This record gives sequence, structure tokens and C-alpha cells, in this order.
Amino acid sequence: MSKISTKINMGNFFEDFFMGQEIVHPLPRTISEGDVSLYIAFTGSRFALHSSNIVAKELGYEKRPIDDILMFHLTFGKSVQDISLNAIANLGYAEISFPTPAFVGDTVSMSSKVIGLKENSNGKSGVVYVHSIGRNQKGEEVLNFKRWVMVHKKDKATITGIKEVPNFKESTPIVEDINIPTILKVDTKKSGGDYFFEDYEVGERLNHPEGITIDNSDHTLATKLYQNNAKVHFNDHMMKNSPMGQRLMYGGIIISIARAISFNGLQNAQWVYAINSGAHCNPTYAGDTIYAYTQILEKIEHKREDIGLLRLRTVAVKNQNSSEIEQPKDEEGKYLKNVVLDLDYTVIVPKKKTSK
Amino acid sequence: MSKISTKINMGNFFEDFFMGQEIVHPLPRTISEGDVSLYIAFTGSRFALHSSNIVAKELGYEKRPIDDILMFHLTFGKSVQDISLNAIANLGYAEISFPTPAFVGDTVSMSSKVIGLKENSNGKSGVVYVHSIGRNQKGEEVLNFKRWVMVHKKDKATITGIKEVPNFKESTPIVEDINIPTILKVDTKKSGGDYFFEDYEVGERLNHPEGITIDNSDHTLATKLYQNNAKVHFNDHMMKNSPMGQRLMYGGIIISIARAISFNGLQNAQWVYAINSGAHCNPTYAGDTIYAYTQILEKIEHKREDIGLLRLRTVAVKNQNSSEIEQPKDEEGKYLKNVVLDLDYTVIVPKKKTSK
Amino acid sequence: MSKISTKINMGNFFEDFFMGQEIVHPLPRTISEGDVSLYIAFTGSRFALHSSNIVAKELGYEKRPIDDILMFHLTFGKSVQDISLNAIANLGYAEISFPTPAFVGDTVSMSSKVIGLKENSNGKSGVVYVHSIGRNQKGEEVLNFKRWVMVHKKDKATITGIKEVPNFKESTPIVEDINIPTILKVDTKKSGGDYFFEDYEVGERLNHPEGITIDNSDHTLATKLYQNNAKVHFNDHMMKNSPMGQRLMYGGIIISIARAISFNGLQNAQWVYAINSGAHCNPTYAGDTIYAYTQILEKIEHKREDIGLLRLRTVAVKNQNSSEIEQPKDEEGKYLKNVVLDLDYTVIVPKKKTSK
Repeated sequence: MSKISTKINMGNFFEDFFMGQEIVHPLPRTISEGDVSLYIAFTGSRFALHSSNIVAKELGYEKRPIDDILMFHLTFGKSVQDISLNAIANLGYAEISFPTPAFVGDTVSMSSKVIGLKENSNGKSGVVYVHSIGRNQKGEEVLNFKRWVMVHKKDKATITGIKEVPNFKESTPIVEDINIPTILKVDTKKSGGDYFFEDYEVGERLNHPEGITIDNSDHTLATKLYQNNAKVHFNDHMMKNSPMGQRLMYGGIIISIARAISFNGLQNAQWVYAINSGAHCNPTYAGDTIYAYTQILEKIEHKREDIGLLRLRTVAVKNQNSSEIEQPKDEEGKYLKNVVLDLDYTVIVPKKKTSK
Repeated sequence: MSKISTKINMGNFFEDFFMGQEIVHPLPRTISEGDVSLYIAFTGSRFALHSSNIVAKELGYEKRPIDDILMFHLTFGKSVQDISLNAIANLGYAEISFPTPAFVGDTVSMSSKVIGLKENSNGKSGVVYVHSIGRNQKGEEVLNFKRWVMVHKKDKATITGIKEVPNFKESTPIVEDINIPTILKVDTKKSGGDYFFEDYEVGERLNHPEGITIDNSDHTLATKLYQNNAKVHFNDHMMKNSPMGQRLMYGGIIISIARAISFNGLQNAQWVYAINSGAHCNPTYAGDTIYAYTQILEKIEHKREDIGLLRLRTVAVKNQNSSEIEQPKDEEGKYLKNVVLDLDYTVIVPKKKTSK
Repeated sequence: MSKISTKINMGNFFEDFFMGQEIVHPLPRTISEGDVSLYIAFTGSRFALHSSNIVAKELGYEKRPIDDILMFHLTFGKSVQDISLNAIANLGYAEISFPTPAFVGDTVSMSSKVIGLKENSNGKSGVVYVHSIGRNQKGEEVLNFKRWVMVHKKDKATITGIKEVPNFKESTPIVEDINIPTILKVDTKKSGGDYFFEDYEVGERLNHPEGITIDNSDHTLATKLYQNNAKVHFNDHMMKNSPMGQRLMYGGIIISIARAISFNGLQNAQWVYAINSGAHCNPTYAGDTIYAYTQILEKIEHKREDIGLLRLRTVAVKNQNSSEIEQPKDEEGKYLKNVVLDLDYTVIVPKKKTSK
């Protein structure tokens, strides 16, 4: 007779979290050249800083740093087991920043602190707010963000009424010491883009023409590489019996594809400074083709003379040219059914004086 | 007029083998960081020792070693051309051990010796038994195993009646000098698991909850990476006219997925000491979702004080939760149709004294 | 109100090119170990020189060089944005050579010169001929080739009548100083092949038995890795409304698969010296199985005593055994509908004296 083991980790439920709780996420991850190549294969990303050691050196680095969004996925994936394995929904992100660049050979790990808890009125679930920090092997912060997820309760009968909701900044603060090297020159013949900070204006809209279709192997290989173990992305047998009827794509895949598509028109915006907020407006599935457009929301001057920051809104659309979408929401404020991502983020763009 | 070349290697047939024959398999393979990342992408494996240089150092290594099962695939693949290209069936494995860890940069190669030959009574085929050894560039053994395959005869009319069948040990012997560093500490906050050798008991059964769906690109990319050139895995045109009607998944894919799924409950069992025997009970195809459960067969004490060994039986099931399968075989001893792997193997688990 | 940006790069049209024009293609690319592993996963290639540092050392290298065809894809991909984004058809290649080997860590970049322009008589399009050179970070040529593409005109009303057509050599000239080390020994037990330059004869035809099926994720991951951004390969939404009805496979995928398949019979032909010409005779789509045969066109002696060159014609066929195709063209000189590649190229093969 076999004895059923209780050693299986079923993830945390709402009651397992408490205010101020510190969670060290397991599985520090060493970043390899394989991760870098796979990320290019998954996205087709062409930002020169991450493709070329020569460009990285011209921009003041010793070697090419890891793409910021790849870094996000590799560290974020670690928190799924503890925070969102039993999530009903990933509700939002705020104040995502990338304080220190990461490189091949770095080992990143992550911890989170519970900063908010709100039981839902139905008593069945609650919202958990966490502040997560990713660090490299030297202890330097490589990622810092807040997110909130709706999680099932174990005991639906007991109502605690807890309601501690943190405030989030509308956009990630801009620090004085931005952790990128002083940019001596930008060779537009290498970066592929002629436009600098001064060239963009608020309200300008870039209709990126590229569309990229994603298949099941693409998105599941990527999500497994990130060691993100949320079942909805991998388990077709389970999902066939869900209302979705199939595997749901990890939302981060869409962020990566939208960022890669935004290259055309933003070639010199090679650094993601922050993600201010993001919504996965509609689900994406294998076979969907992703398009995107970007609007310039804000131009932010910095005390550094070599760079400025652009606050952008990139909207990803499925199975429809992005130029056909005027606004992502309808008149009632509801997202159109083909809109799959509404991302508010800030990039760093060199100023004209760096142009070679 | 063209002359048809005879330079094509069509693989070996039963008559091409003889007792004591030594075969040096071509294509030594240098292991790269790309192989490591791809393996994580293929399996979603989360064992910390293979994900993180920091954990590897804490466990006494200079850097993270290659996952034992990845190493198996990379070396095993080399033998397909000579041993099993004309195989009707891969009948079994025995006494698979991993005497020396392998690292990125190592070059592995393989040779085999014929240790048994048995002509089938129908005269059409025979069974070839080989003892295969994989070595690194220094000549150290990294893999050692026995396997037997059923191979077509060229000349079906001539009956030789050869019958030399070797004996296999029921399980791989446990050596005194296990080639892993003395474990000074296991940081459970990094490995993700709280359980040590002492915590497991014989008969305990772990129902791993994860299910992973495999698509055609996943399994063919993996099998090509391993340079395993058995046609049944790649050639859909040929397989459409076979009774299977489609490409058959390389059985090693299932071993890898089952091992990755077994992480949940066996997080600290980071070393595969040996594979004692294994059966691919039913075929798997693209679209199948793999689940697994593990039973503790035996607890083996070792003279080393930091570790013990667990003999495990991991059963992989397709398109059904593993908890729904009580026994892999029916009352007549036949495998249930959803059972795809029955693996008897031995892992190394640190003892409680190493817990940080 | 948003203002539609004009910063989007829509690629060049026929009128954007002029004779003698020099184009520096952006996005220098650092080659990583991840690229090497992915290439093996995409193709199943087994040439020992590119799989093994030990073999590379025996052949006189410090470490394994990058597969010539992978190098071609990584550099070629850079020119798509400028040359062929608006191409109606890739008409041909000529005189492709690989003057210097490339290694992991090298950064390759590319530039092109317009060497021919021919307006089509319908006034709607024209042919652009370019001479493209890829260089490593030291400025050494790693790739040198000519190609011509048919490109849309912007202004169909204005007829220029330009017609400057360059001449191409029928085959790439053989240089005196071939840039591969002196071959001291070829260990056939490592390379997997027993045949040397002297063993092949003109007219000999090798029917490679392997067939490899390609799926959507395979070919799109590869093409994205090469940063080749031609939309027809990625955008299923757009292609569904085209006469093809689906994504078209990048022709380079077929070159790679055909080369990998040609291993069986040409194991020691580990260097592609040149591609003399190539035609993508019919389109390939996901699900197609690729077979190939190779004919020896010419045996070329070289002043070096360790090597000779074979000029080969490899014909790739889809969904049909290559042995069933006698000639790739019918009696009217039209390619058979299953023939997908007709490649004329030259490989370097060691002479018998190097045999260990």
C-alpha cells in the first residue's frame, strides 16, 4: 500500500500571506549565452545593444548587457511558485525598474515582501500585493517592482475582512543617477535608427508595421526557459477543460514581442528604464499574430546631457494591423477585443549630441 | 548518367554485430551553454544545482554541472547511428550510471562493446546487447550503461541460432566513492525544497501535480540537438505511412519531462546516481500532456555522512492526472494504455545535517 | 489627437537604389554558444568540426569554428531590412565565399554595394544586384557574395529604362591560399565517414536517406534568431490573405537542412568553400518533409597536398524520397513541383594522406 505524500508544494493561498511577510523565492538563476540567443529566437529582437558586443562597447559597456525584458522574465519567473501559482488573475504591475544592468554569467535571485492584502467581498478570494526585488550575485538590485494578484482562499467560510491596499505611483520615479554608462557616441549605421530624443514629440504615434505570429512551441519553450511554472501556460490537457479551451500564453511573451516590434521607429531607445503599469487586456493563444503601435506620452529631460527619457504607451493588437486601431478602448472604456496589451513604460533615448 | 553511390551509411543489421565487437561512435560533442539553456526550455527543469552557479558553489562545485539526463541524451545520441538506426524496438536499459560530472566546455564521446546476441526464432531479427561508455576529453567516464535493441536481419534465410544473453543486475551497484563533492550546506531557500533523506519513507508516493504538453517542434528540436538521428522522430512523411501515422517522440524526452515534473516533492534530490531500468510502455506523440508520480522504493544508507540514496520509481502518464493511476499495470501485468514510462532510478539526497 | 509618425522604416524601393551605392547594414551581431546549439537543434547537423572542440583541434583549429551556413544566415539576415524588405522575389545568388572562419565571440557586420540595376519592362518593379561583404570585428572578410532581388517601384508611372546587368562567374574562383589550417590528420572514427577526396568520382550520386520535417516553430525561431525580418516568414495573419495562404519558409532553412542531410556520404566534407549558385525552385511550408540527393559535379585539385575540392549539386525535395527524383527538371526545363532547392556549391575534402 502506498502512502500519499504531503511533501508536494501546492503553492500559497490567500490565508498563507500576511502583511510584512518576507518571501525568499528559490532557484537563483545563472544567465547564459544560451538564454540570450533563445530570447532573440523567441522575439526576433534587433536592438543593437543586446545583439552586439561592438555596439555595447561603443555605448560604454564592457560587453552586451542582457535585454531588460529577458531579465524581467528570468527573475519574475521565480516568484510564480510562491505568489501566483494559485492566482485567479494577475491584476497589475507598477513601478518596475531595472536599477543595475545584468550580464551573461550573473546569477539573479528574488525576494518579495507582502505590502497589501484585500479580501474580496465574496469571501472566496483575495488580492495580494507584493514588492519584489531581484538581485545579482553581488547583492545589487537588478529588478524592483510591485504587483498584485487575485488568489484563491483555502477557507471560504471564514471572513477576515482584511483590507490594506498600498498606493502606487502613477509612474516610476526618475532617479538622478541612472545606471547606464555615459554615452559617448551612437553610430546610427549600427543601431539602424536615425532618431534621437529631440526628434520625438508628445502625441506622436508610431504604427509599427511588423506582425509576428506565435505558435505553441514558441511560447511554451520561452515560459519554460524562464522557469515560470504557472500551469495554464503548459498543460493543454487541463486547459481543454477550462473555459479557454487551450493553453493561455504567458502575458510576458506579449510584452517581449511588442517591445521587439517597437524597434521600427525606436531603434535608439535601447534601454527600458521602467515599466509604469501594464494590462493584459485580452488573452492570447497559439496562432495569434501580434502587432503593435506606440504613442509618445511624455518627454522627460534629465540632468545628464547625453540622454533623455520617453514615456511610451505601446498597445499590442492581435490579428489586426495596429494602424487600424485608433484607441485601445471603446466609448464605455472597455478594451477592444483584439487589444491584448496596454503598456505604459519609460525608455532612455540618447540625445543628438551623441550621434556619430 | 549518374552512378548511385555506395557511400551511404545505412546502419548496422543483426549480422553486422559479433560478440566482443568494439564500436567507437563518431561525433564527439562539446557541451555548450546553449545546450544548458535549451534543456531548461525543453523541460522547464528547476533543479537548483543545474540552474545556478551560486547553488553549485554552495554544494561544492566550481560551477554548475550539466544535468545528468541532458548528459545522457548528448552521449546516447551518438550511438544511434551504429546501434539502433535499424532497430525495430529499444527493448531496455540497465545499470546506467554517471560516474563523473560533466560541465560546459567538456567534450563527450562514446564507444560500445557487444556483450550479447540473440537471434529471434522467426529468423527475421535479433537482439543486440551492448555495454556503452561515454568519456570526457580527459578520458574520465561520464556515462556507463547497458542496453538492448531488436534489430532487423539482412539475410532472413540463414539461421545462425546464436543465443548469448548477458545477465544484468537488478539495480546499479552503489560505489564507495560517489563522485560528488562533500555537501557542506543545502540552503532550502535556494533549492525550493524542505525535505532531506531522513524525511522520506519507503512506499511513500508523490503525486506531482504538474502536467506538461509537448508539441512537435519541442521534441524534434530536442532530439536534433542530441544528434539522435533515428528517423521515426523527424520524418513525418515516412511516419504517415506507418501504423503510428505520425512522428514518434524519442523516449528520452519523456524521461526528461518526468524528471523535471518530479521536482515538486524531490527538490533536493539534485543528483541522478543511476538509472536501474526503464520501459517506454506506450508511445507518445505531439500534443500529449505528460504527468508523473513517484514512489520511494528503497532508502539506501551510504558511508558518507552527508548523503543517502533513494531508489525511486517514477511513472509517467499521458493525458491523465497521475493521481488517478493507482498501479501502472492491469491485473494481467500489462501496462495501462496511458502509462508511457516506468523508470526505476536512484537519486542522491542530502541528509538533514547539511540543512542550512 | 495623435500625429502619425514618419519615423517608420518601410524599406527601400527600386528608386532608392543607385549604381555604386554603398549601404552599411545595421545591427552587428555577436555570435554566441547559444547560436551554435540552436543551429544544431534546428538542423540536426552532425559535421564533427562544428560539434566538437577535440575534432577542431585535430584539424588544426584552436576551437570549433561556426558552421559556414549558420554564419551565412547571421550575416545575410542583416541585409534584409535594406535590400529585400520590399522584394517580390529573391532571384539568385552567386560567388558566395567564406574567406575567414568565424568563432564564438566574433561580431559580424555587413555592407553592400549596388552593382546592377534593371528596370522591368512593365515599369512596376526592377531588379537590384548587390555585392555584399560580411566582416568580423577585426575587419577580416568572413562572407562575400552577390545576389539579386526583384523589388517594387514606388512610382510606377515614371520609366527610367535603366539596365545595368553585371556578369557573374559560373562558379566561385578557387584561391591559392585557402584559409583553413593544414590538416594533419582526419580521424574517421570521430568524423563518422571513411571517404576522402580520392574516393569520389564525377557523376556519382549520393541518395541521402534521411528526411526531416519542419514545423512552424522551428523555422520561425530560426529566422528570428538570424534577425531576418522579411514579413512573409513570420506573419501568418498577413499571409493568410496572400495566394500562399500561410507563412513561407525562409529559403535559407532549406539550404541548412539539405546540408545537414548531406552528411550521410559526405562526412569529411566539413568545409563549405563556396556557394556557386542556388535556386529556391518551389516554396516550402510548415509540415513539409525535406529530403536531398547530391551529385558530384567536378573534382578540383589544389596546390595544397592535404585537400581537394568537390563541386556538388545538392537537390532538395519535399515530401518525396530523393531517390525517386531522377532529374530536378522536366523535359521542358521546368523544376518538378516537389523540388525545392537546387544548390551548386563547392566543399573542401581532405585527401587520403590525412587519414589517421
